[in-house]
Amino acid sequence: MNVDEKYFKIISKRERAIFEGAITMGALFHQFIGTPVSLKTVDGIEKAIKEAMQLQPCINEVKIMINREMLEHLKSEYQYVSLSGDMLDIKVFSEYEGNLAVIRMKFIEELQYPLMYVEEVK
Amino acid sequence: MNVDEKYFKIISKRERAIFEGAITMGALFHQFIGTPVSLKTVDGIEKAIKEAMQLQPCINEVKIMINREMLEHLKSEYQYVSLSGDMLDIKVFSEYEGNLAVIRMKFIEELQYPLMYVEEVK
Amino acid sequence: MNVDEKYFKIISKRERAIFEGAITMGALFHQFIGTPVSLKTVDGIEKAIKEAMQLQPCINEVKIMINREMLEHLKSEYQYVSLSGDMLDIKVFSEYEGNLAVIRMKFIEELQYPLMYVEEVK
Amino acid sequence: MNVDEKYFKIISKRERAIFEGAITMGALFHQFIGTPVSLKTVDGIEKAIKEAMQLQPCINEVKIMINREMLEHLKSEYQYVSLSGDMLDIKVFSEYEGNLAVIRMKFIEELQYPLMYVEEVK
Repeated sequence: MNVDEKYFKIISKRERAIFEGAITMGALFHQFIGTPVSLKTVDGIEKAIKEAMQLQPCINEVKIMINREMLEHLKSEYQYVSLSGDMLDIKVFSEYEGNLAVIRMKFIEELQYPLMYVEEVK
Repeated sequence: MNVDEKYFKIISKRERAIFEGAITMGALFHQFIGTPVSLKTVDGIEKAIKEAMQLQPCINEVKIMINREMLEHLKSEYQYVSLSGDMLDIKVFSEYEGNLAVIRMKFIEELQYPLMYVEEVK
Repeated sequence: MNVDEKYFKIISKRERAIFEGAITMGALFHQFIGTPVSLKTVDGIEKAIKEAMQLQPCINEVKIMINREMLEHLKSEYQYVSLSGDMLDIKVFSEYEGNLAVIRMKFIEELQYPLMYVEEVK
Repeated sequence: MNVDEKYFKIISKRERAIFEGAITMGALFHQFIGTPVSLKTVDGIEKAIKEAMQLQPCINEVKIMINREMLEHLKSEYQYVSLSGDMLDIKVFSEYEGNLAVIRMKFIEELQYPLMYVEEVK
């Protein structure tokens, strides 16, 4: 079956790149929020999240930066926290037939919200 | 702050509708996959998932159909299963300033994959 | 197959009740953390979480209280938040052959941590 | 605050080990089910899951084995799958003051269910 022909013919190549990047950003957030994380494990979990999400259709690269500063000043005696939206800065690079969309998520202080938006399309 | 002005000016209104619908579809799948579900609880969990995802930006409506047939023939003596991709048929209706995108997810037997695609844009 | 006989003969009935309650508490937290929630949807999501977790082995009842006060004072313009550990107070009632364990989770300010503990066994 | 004194005095040391191991097993399952995984990424995700769950109280070690055979024969053209219960074999080693509990999860064909049980306590 030609999936692109059958399921995606009503949108442009540029829209397809945006679509796939957006799916992956929503997926990443809701899959991994809640995961226990500490300064000691943060490199490994970043790498695993990146590799998992790069498996999804059209995803060239995922850059994920978990805020180390928030892990350094853990008030909990347990020395780890549940991964939350305010700790994350993520870029998803999604490409479909030469069209590249860069989807970004970062926590916007003014909104008190981890905003997902389209940073660049080319 | 005008969020639309600041973060979304590089994409069209139509692309914005597609973008927000795709985020919600990826989010829904990865938030709720794994949830225990049975014939007795399926109506309630469908409603809760629908209401949760309708909170997200631009989402007008979410229609979620969990396959009852798969719940009727549970081989497990435990009479429930973990929600999985092959049980789901979902439509997300996303609208931005008069542009409506219908994002669909259903399990495609031929692909053995829960495909997310754009069913309609108007 | 007699599951209890085969897989649980090395622990007491009291331990079994504690075991099953603890599984369900860990499961509940990591399944639903991240779910979008607002004052409008909080009753429905509480009910759905309760019903889902009551499907698990030995679980008689789940009482879940999401903090309404935190939902009333949403600073985000989006009028909803991702469910997080500091918003939750949960009791899981787990029973095995007359032995009842009450597992509790609540956010302990002093620890800055959503502590899971055994509140009562009888 | 002495957490053990305040919150755990009604259970034995052995019960505490079982309790903490069970929480971690329930947590692991519901946090990571749904994660995209392939033969190429399976080593990394196993390591990240192990490290994340070892952060939890009393957890000495987590051994997680994702079934490679199921990843080798992917019918999907997408060459990855969502992590599911039938792919997992997990051991959680939980210790509290000299009492060690080994909690196991594996998929039992006869039950068609990923059973969590206590394999050993010493």
